[in-house]
Amino acid sequence: MKILFVAGDPKPERWTVPTQALLPDAEIHVWDADAPACDADYAIVWKPPAQLFEREKNLKAVFNLGAGIDGLLKVPNLPADITVVRLEDAGMAVQMAEYVMHQLVDITRTMAVYRAQNAEGRWQIHRPIKRSEWPIGIMGLGHIGKRVARTLVSLDYTVHGWARGEHEIDGVTTWSGEDHFATFLGKTRVLINTLPLTEATWGIINRQTLSDLRPEAVLINVGRGEHLVEEDLLTAMDEGQVIRAVLDVFNQEPLPEDHPFWARGNITITPHISARTLRDDTLRQITGKIRDHSEGKPISGIVDVERGY
Amino acid sequence: MKILFVAGDPKPERWTVPTQALLPDAEIHVWDADAPACDADYAIVWKPPAQLFEREKNLKAVFNLGAGIDGLLKVPNLPADITVVRLEDAGMAVQMAEYVMHQLVDITRTMAVYRAQNAEGRWQIHRPIKRSEWPIGIMGLGHIGKRVARTLVSLDYTVHGWARGEHEIDGVTTWSGEDHFATFLGKTRVLINTLPLTEATWGIINRQTLSDLRPEAVLINVGRGEHLVEEDLLTAMDEGQVIRAVLDVFNQEPLPEDHPFWARGNITITPHISARTLRDDTLRQITGKIRDHSEGKPISGIVDVERGY
Repeated sequence: MKILFVAGDPKPERWTVPTQALLPDAEIHVWDADAPACDADYAIVWKPPAQLFEREKNLKAVFNLGAGIDGLLKVPNLPADITVVRLEDAGMAVQMAEYVMHQLVDITRTMAVYRAQNAEGRWQIHRPIKRSEWPIGIMGLGHIGKRVARTLVSLDYTVHGWARGEHEIDGVTTWSGEDHFATFLGKTRVLINTLPLTEATWGIINRQTLSDLRPEAVLINVGRGEHLVEEDLLTAMDEGQVIRAVLDVFNQEPLPEDHPFWARGNITITPHISARTLRDDTLRQITGKIRDHSEGKPISGIVDVERGY
Repeated sequence: MKILFVAGDPKPERWTVPTQALLPDAEIHVWDADAPACDADYAIVWKPPAQLFEREKNLKAVFNLGAGIDGLLKVPNLPADITVVRLEDAGMAVQMAEYVMHQLVDITRTMAVYRAQNAEGRWQIHRPIKRSEWPIGIMGLGHIGKRVARTLVSLDYTVHGWARGEHEIDGVTTWSGEDHFATFLGKTRVLINTLPLTEATWGIINRQTLSDLRPEAVLINVGRGEHLVEEDLLTAMDEGQVIRAVLDVFNQEPLPEDHPFWARGNITITPHISARTLRDDTLRQITGKIRDHSEGKPISGIVDVERGY
């Protein structure tokens, strides 16, 4: 069995050596734009070049090194009938849950105020907040959205969830479909986005969405930059409808130096680190699926390419 | 029924008005050092003066406005046979759990580094941490310690717990008694203190305790300042055995302006805000117990004064 590794890591051996250890009988290649086809059976990829699918005609499946497969689906020449497999969790959901939790509590418990006092050597107690004043709405109720929801429920926050399809999560009021989107937003003060990026969700956080939220709203975006119409967020902040945003993803990454977000004290910016691919967990999952697939066993995580996730 | 409110709040009506609403038939008094006895049946107190017990001889029970009753037990003249009732949860445990969670993630995910980059307009991704490198040990497994433990387990941290008696908590390795204290510390890198303050726990976090921890340890103290021998922490930090501390409680509060803790960049100081008494929840609990007690029904939360909690 031949496996082709296609990702922009300058040290691909960090991936290929453990892959070889996990699949001792496999022949492992690293993508080289100038090399001929190696007739790979499987490819492990992150944002692969279009030539991959021109050159490698025997691929039985492509394994994406992340949960979001929007980067892979937009590659031209992706054969319509190829099996695309996304990463399932592999330690991402828990990282996302703790990131969201941390950022939420930073806001609700005014931790920045206490950090500033700490730096100044000042002891001052502020009025405690009521968690009933911070109803939360989570967009996207896949593996990640569900885990974020459960974490926040466990800390007694009021949590609403919205997704295209129907979901049931203990302690969460769930809403589904476009018809209930505005109702969901009307219950929400802290909007958390964990949606996959598809044609249907592109630009879903826009002026209308933000104005449907409860007053003095907060946005936490850990989905994709393209979910948010960035100028609409700035307008909603100027109008006071949104008082704070935590953004881990952006239309353009790295976020350009002259982007207006940097100058806003009420926008928290992190460089796409809310959930990182953990190499060991990821390769254990992917090599296990390659073994199963090669033996004709069913595997999970196969993407519905039409739907986009 | 007469109820006496004894706490240093400059606006006692914030407490007495809702108490009256909850117990319409009660006669409610506010402590006045210069007034004669009012023959109260019950007292609701926070760090009461010694005269309280000299003057009020008919008290059937004293309700403490907090979970920690060390401040009450050290009042001279506290009658040996009086019923002392501590606050049970009333929204404190969840606040403590989210505070600990927030501070832990702030450290393990190097959020201060990302905040500094944010302020400088810099986009830089750092190596993700492995949560296996941050084994946690929780001292004290009462209501608060258990809730902290459950929250951290839900985020896939390795959690050990230690208390005087035996406890069982899903996903937590628990240890009990002095004999297992050093073993527990040897498993722990992040030591979280939620113990009650008693004669047995006074100064329990000292030079020996800190040196028994795993290397590059972290201390999070949300118990009481007196649990920690403050100069021993400074020594352990100077020696590099402890790399970071988060302190919400201190031997002297407010922390004096010239205290050496303020000058340490690797000590996070908050002004005793990890869990705040929430007035509504607290008064609902206490008035419910007063009603039950006056009707001869059993109540929970009665303190074992000998044991100290």
